[in-house]
Amino acid sequence: MLLLALDTATDKGSLALAAADRLLIEYSLESQGTYLTRLMPGVEALFQATGRDLSEVTAIAVSQGPGNFTGLRIGLATAKGLAWALGCPLVPVPTLEVLAAQFPYQPHPIGVVMDAKRQEVYLGLFLCPETLPQPLEEAVRLPLAALKQRLKAPLVLTGPGLEVYRETLEAELPREIYWAPAEMRHPRAATVARLALRRLQQGWTVPPQQLVPTYLRPAL
Amino acid sequence: MLLLALDTATDKGSLALAAADRLLIEYSLESQGTYLTRLMPGVEALFQATGRDLSEVTAIAVSQGPGNFTGLRIGLATAKGLAWALGCPLVPVPTLEVLAAQFPYQPHPIGVVMDAKRQEVYLGLFLCPETLPQPLEEAVRLPLAALKQRLKAPLVLTGPGLEVYRETLEAELPREIYWAPAEMRHPRAATVARLALRRLQQGWTVPPQQLVPTYLRPAL
Repeated sequence: MLLLALDTATDKGSLALAAADRLLIEYSLESQGTYLTRLMPGVEALFQATGRDLSEVTAIAVSQGPGNFTGLRIGLATAKGLAWALGCPLVPVPTLEVLAAQFPYQPHPIGVVMDAKRQEVYLGLFLCPETLPQPLEEAVRLPLAALKQRLKAPLVLTGPGLEVYRETLEAELPREIYWAPAEMRHPRAATVARLALRRLQQGWTVPPQQLVPTYLRPAL
Repeated sequence: MLLLALDTATDKGSLALAAADRLLIEYSLESQGTYLTRLMPGVEALFQATGRDLSEVTAIAVSQGPGNFTGLRIGLATAKGLAWALGCPLVPVPTLEVLAAQFPYQPHPIGVVMDAKRQEVYLGLFLCPETLPQPLEEAVRLPLAALKQRLKAPLVLTGPGLEVYRETLEAELPREIYWAPAEMRHPRAATVARLALRRLQQGWTVPPQQLVPTYLRPAL
């Protein structure tokens, strides 16, 4: 069991290689260039550093979005190509769920905010009383100005949207909303791998031909 | 403000570069070879990927242990050398605290277990009701067989020691002890950077000549 996980949903992508439930290695993909030029060399570096080989991979996991338009397309295209060529299962994982899963055993609800551009955000609300997040309601896209009324304290707030709209949010949100530490606000490919493993065990795979990024409907 | 953080306390080391409270990049250091051959190329890769330069670094943070004997020595020697040569502050951060800080806003106590070899473990117990862990008692080194009686449920248990002594612990610990997901059981250099930033603001730096790894006394 060797699982390769890719996350290119945000400007801080990452890659991970996991053997069953053991994380072997994780790289972040700081992109001076684009993911198009950095993703495959990154994958190659994972194998070089661990002494493993691409041919040993038994499943590909990918962060499905929402997120960065071009980043997601490059990540999904790469994951689909690898899964198809290797003939192994492809497991998409919702990006908002990945961010919530980074707060296990959390008694408060977890709000995940990602930038949807043009003063809009993606919002997911979860409970994560154990290690797997459960959505509290359907994730939505909504104007930044409408976010405040959706967030009820106490709540742990995370996601890369916090940095993008920091000034507005700091000014508007109540103090009883707990901000995630900066290093926990980006999806980790290692967490994608963990959630994908569970999905794989439950048979939640997708044919490479059919996988598309997650789009979220605007909030009513 | 550019902070370089090194963690070589376990077999899964990592490196991070942070600009004030914004994480720029993080690499894990899977060591097929030793840290001696991988650490400096890793540091160089951070700068190449971000387009930053070593000369811009204004502080060096390092995971101080406890942990892997040789790994810590190489990490500390590198951090001391860099801080001395650059003439910038050196900020050590206790490794057990780094592992606890990966569970912010946690209502339960957090137990951190690291391998001390020869069937002994390092144990730290913390509360982390906000983002900075507070020790519940002094960290200790103790025989694996004595660990069980020190852990009272409910408790979130984390640290690389869980993997090392998995079979024994799974058999002996009560089910009300919550095991951290696998990808959260290793110290992240990005978290070292966050804790170091706070220490730096409080003036908790150490002259390079004086820094030594943390040794823990045996439990009474």
